[in-house]
Amino acid sequence: MSNDTGFVYHFGGHAPSRTVRPGEEFDVFTEDCFSGKLTSEDGQPREVAPFPKVNPLTGPVEIEGVKAGDVIAVRILSMIPARDWGVATVSPNFGLLSGTRLEPNLQPEQEERVWIWRFAEDRRSLSAKTKSGPALNTDYRPFFGTIGVAPAHGETRLCVVPGDFGGNLDVPDLGPGATLYLRANVDGAHLYVGDGHYAQGDGEMAGTAIEGAFNARLRVDRVETDAAFEWPRIETETQTGVVGVGRPLDSALKVAATGLVKWISATTGLDALDAYQLVSQTATIRIGNVVNPDYTVLVSISKRTLAEGSVSV
Amino acid sequence: MSNDTGFVYHFGGHAPSRTVRPGEEFDVFTEDCFSGKLTSEDGQPREVAPFPKVNPLTGPVEIEGVKAGDVIAVRILSMIPARDWGVATVSPNFGLLSGTRLEPNLQPEQEERVWIWRFAEDRRSLSAKTKSGPALNTDYRPFFGTIGVAPAHGETRLCVVPGDFGGNLDVPDLGPGATLYLRANVDGAHLYVGDGHYAQGDGEMAGTAIEGAFNARLRVDRVETDAAFEWPRIETETQTGVVGVGRPLDSALKVAATGLVKWISATTGLDALDAYQLVSQTATIRIGNVVNPDYTVLVSISKRTLAEGSVSV
Amino acid sequence: MSNDTGFVYHFGGHAPSRTVRPGEEFDVFTEDCFSGKLTSEDGQPREVAPFPKVNPLTGPVEIEGVKAGDVIAVRILSMIPARDWGVATVSPNFGLLSGTRLEPNLQPEQEERVWIWRFAEDRRSLSAKTKSGPALNTDYRPFFGTIGVAPAHGETRLCVVPGDFGGNLDVPDLGPGATLYLRANVDGAHLYVGDGHYAQGDGEMAGTAIEGAFNARLRVDRVETDAAFEWPRIETETQTGVVGVGRPLDSALKVAATGLVKWISATTGLDALDAYQLVSQTATIRIGNVVNPDYTVLVSISKRTLAEGSVSV
Amino acid sequence: MSNDTGFVYHFGGHAPSRTVRPGEEFDVFTEDCFSGKLTSEDGQPREVAPFPKVNPLTGPVEIEGVKAGDVIAVRILSMIPARDWGVATVSPNFGLLSGTRLEPNLQPEQEERVWIWRFAEDRRSLSAKTKSGPALNTDYRPFFGTIGVAPAHGETRLCVVPGDFGGNLDVPDLGPGATLYLRANVDGAHLYVGDGHYAQGDGEMAGTAIEGAFNARLRVDRVETDAAFEWPRIETETQTGVVGVGRPLDSALKVAATGLVKWISATTGLDALDAYQLVSQTATIRIGNVVNPDYTVLVSISKRTLAEGSVSV
Repeated sequence: MSNDTGFVYHFGGHAPSRTVRPGEEFDVFTEDCFSGKLTSEDGQPREVAPFPKVNPLTGPVEIEGVKAGDVIAVRILSMIPARDWGVATVSPNFGLLSGTRLEPNLQPEQEERVWIWRFAEDRRSLSAKTKSGPALNTDYRPFFGTIGVAPAHGETRLCVVPGDFGGNLDVPDLGPGATLYLRANVDGAHLYVGDGHYAQGDGEMAGTAIEGAFNARLRVDRVETDAAFEWPRIETETQTGVVGVGRPLDSALKVAATGLVKWISATTGLDALDAYQLVSQTATIRIGNVVNPDYTVLVSISKRTLAEGSVSV
Repeated sequence: MSNDTGFVYHFGGHAPSRTVRPGEEFDVFTEDCFSGKLTSEDGQPREVAPFPKVNPLTGPVEIEGVKAGDVIAVRILSMIPARDWGVATVSPNFGLLSGTRLEPNLQPEQEERVWIWRFAEDRRSLSAKTKSGPALNTDYRPFFGTIGVAPAHGETRLCVVPGDFGGNLDVPDLGPGATLYLRANVDGAHLYVGDGHYAQGDGEMAGTAIEGAFNARLRVDRVETDAAFEWPRIETETQTGVVGVGRPLDSALKVAATGLVKWISATTGLDALDAYQLVSQTATIRIGNVVNPDYTVLVSISKRTLAEGSVSV
Repeated sequence: MSNDTGFVYHFGGHAPSRTVRPGEEFDVFTEDCFSGKLTSEDGQPREVAPFPKVNPLTGPVEIEGVKAGDVIAVRILSMIPARDWGVATVSPNFGLLSGTRLEPNLQPEQEERVWIWRFAEDRRSLSAKTKSGPALNTDYRPFFGTIGVAPAHGETRLCVVPGDFGGNLDVPDLGPGATLYLRANVDGAHLYVGDGHYAQGDGEMAGTAIEGAFNARLRVDRVETDAAFEWPRIETETQTGVVGVGRPLDSALKVAATGLVKWISATTGLDALDAYQLVSQTATIRIGNVVNPDYTVLVSISKRTLAEGSVSV
Repeated sequence: MSNDTGFVYHFGGHAPSRTVRPGEEFDVFTEDCFSGKLTSEDGQPREVAPFPKVNPLTGPVEIEGVKAGDVIAVRILSMIPARDWGVATVSPNFGLLSGTRLEPNLQPEQEERVWIWRFAEDRRSLSAKTKSGPALNTDYRPFFGTIGVAPAHGETRLCVVPGDFGGNLDVPDLGPGATLYLRANVDGAHLYVGDGHYAQGDGEMAGTAIEGAFNARLRVDRVETDAAFEWPRIETETQTGVVGVGRPLDSALKVAATGLVKWISATTGLDALDAYQLVSQTATIRIGNVVNPDYTVLVSISKRTLAEGSVSV
């Protein structure tokens, strides 16, 4: 698992590429999931970025003084697109509306296609030509598809995998201003980041977002948290929630919902049933991805639902 | 399947309780899912509303001149709470975070509990006392949990079931201002409505919303639509989408996403892959329920994503 | 739901076609699922037997004196093939290895094909020509794909649906000598039978078995049973078990396994955990179908595992 | 990942513990999944073998001359129980009929219990005392729960995980006389074996088999195979099939069924639909486990179904 391009393709198993202090702001450059090599509608995704050389990660960044077992807060301070275009694909045996390696079928394969999404001049929206009709348009809604730490129990996982260590979550809430809470499994935490998205719908259904390179600024803090911390948590300006990872979607949802109920219970004094009632009447379920080796679901509640201060992990 | 209380408990198999003309506004009273009999925290949900006498439906309303095969648009013009309180429960063998009849386990059963949610004076929020701690609060966000027509192929289904005929969808978007599109399976369509909710989180995870009676005004129109119409569609002020019904969630999601892709393709001229790309980068996935005999998912896109006029069914 | 062909297409909603006494042997003729109209490799399955006119059922047979709530034992005494050939198909949007209505995709559709399976002279095996290579051969292993009673709670279901009322189970153990135990939901039980199979692999994966007409002899007894009876039970010469119905397979499996554990516990005095241990170390899991609207799983144990007499329901 | 006990807890990442030649018979001792430390009904499974120190593996055994990309045949020549007792447990948050880490719930936890299964004098059956009633009995049916090679793409996985590299499959067919075919992902293949079972029902539903130590003899051959080889294959005296791994069960089943169809097609000249028809009418579906991080399903056909010689990989 050499590091000669400056990018790596696994979570775990590397010496740190750099070291930062808790609370220190630092900059990273992240490549798109095709390593910047898929540059036109005529490109061949599986040739320019053959599996498993997809989703290059920047890192790992060692966080000074963090011990295995600590919880860290990864704050995304800013994300600046590094190019004026992003790229998206549909490929055979991939995506929600195709057979896949884990849900194969005997039908003829889905066609492959590439879309180049170009920024409008004000960089607030993107547009892509289509083969069949009018151009497509969408707002710029940046976030990191992949942020994770070295996995627990000495496992080494491919960069396309999500898990309790974070990883390829593809949850659209992970944009500028958001905080991702993760349990460090090794001293120094060993943070990896990549797979930036210029925009993505819920579920990343066709298999890719609008994939783009970024220059970003991050900060990592060591935080106190409740004993119930097990799965990643995400906090935005207005919402706070837990990420579940699993297959099928029902499994990921149960993980996230149970995690949120237990967390609310731990921080408010409500017992589990009362916290469950609160979640049931007020929670938002966001589907992150339904195309990775495991799926991801964020269950969150409005921070104003709880008394001030009670939601910080 | 008599109708002596004025309420029924099935989709299909009844003579109409009334007849309206397409385009005619009409009023309905709908009971809560416990028939208004669960009125205090000490109440016994399974005694006051024993299965299958839950979810009483108002109807069926015959729509004059509608033929089997036509598509109707059910417009929710207004919903006025008929009481100053709603009710929610957690019961054994029910809800996402318990074993259920279809996913049983051998653990000791979950406890039963009832919450009475009372409106604030301005009727813009509700509050419920808890056994264990501070009161719970949430905004008033009304919608109908159950709207459906007589099922296809001569089936008669219990009122707790969702399907391609609509039914117990529990999709929070179905509030005032929304339109639900359904295929009529019998002449006159035979519309049923009930199961009003004063508020509900995504998924109705604990098994009930804040259940409440309503006085509501509806209008049903007969509409032209594309040949691809198969599953219910929902249109709100800003979004338009397709509802999928199935288990597990993945199944419901595939139904909804495929339906939306095909619909966009049929109405815009984009081929399936270009429509898929649009959906993948811009769609919102809303989980309706994960507690009924089948689950429901709404996949929708912003109406401004498409050219004017192209989204009306 | 007229009955002018002598066959019906629903469970529930019919006047009895005949009445028998408990313990009385009686004969039935059952058509194949294509009503005998798909007779050559060039046939068009969806034209000769368009949905929902598939899976014609013989019945309903009223069982004299049986009351709603009683358990009946349906004994398959003999099955004689009514023709010297059976038929099987693969069709678009159907079967485990294709997208389906409930798990749609955007790939090009699977091709349609028909196989005519002809009996060997001794009627102990069947053989089918193929388009691409050598003929296929298999043993004759007859059973009824569909046996059920009128559903509970006044529902009427299509004949292709399995449920707690039995129905389109497609469990290969239901051949001559087997007994299917079902709860009567209406007085007289109203028994339906059809969808005979000359052979089928586990899961009926491509969507049909070797479909064939039968002349069969049955007997229905009213039996005493334990209070835990909820889902169908199947008893053969050597095994006894519980059928679970649901989606995904995990759901059907949990239903069946829990049912078997509770039954063993009720009949042996073992507590639930000890019964669970017995099941876990000795049970056989048989996948019935993975292609109907719900899937079916039989979890059974060897009758010699339990003390004599303790396994009869 | 030190190796000081002679046992390891991962697939991948180790120097070989020994080297053998293809075709050479060699002996291994394998510990039970609790490292032999759970010796009485009063034992504490989670104390004597705390996660992740469960399922100790013997190996890795390097196979001389095998290159990454080759397929190996692991032949189980004999298995001799190393003790006169085995052990089984039920634990909280584990097993099919309990909430688990990936399908959590809010019910009170399932109780913990230990069963010691002792061999009859002839070693052909085992018996366990129960807390609640009569003793349990079952036949001795030995197999290895876990056989695997170093994973692909540089991943390191915990020993409790199954995958395309084999691993914690828990498929009861893997007993004496069986052959497991695996793709080598690294030079030398690096074979791991452990988790022997004295008996297990389909699915290993309660979470453990009758866990026991073994002295076993193995042989590994390098074999030619078709290009379609992707997932593990198992061959016994009478059956030959493909193992699928995934969640939910439906996913594992689709993997296995598709693999078998493609293999038959590659080896017989039947096209995919004709091979699918053969599988659909004759296949056996065996559920391996439904309790590990991924589930396993073996879909197999009788070797006499195919012409002689055509089934060898």
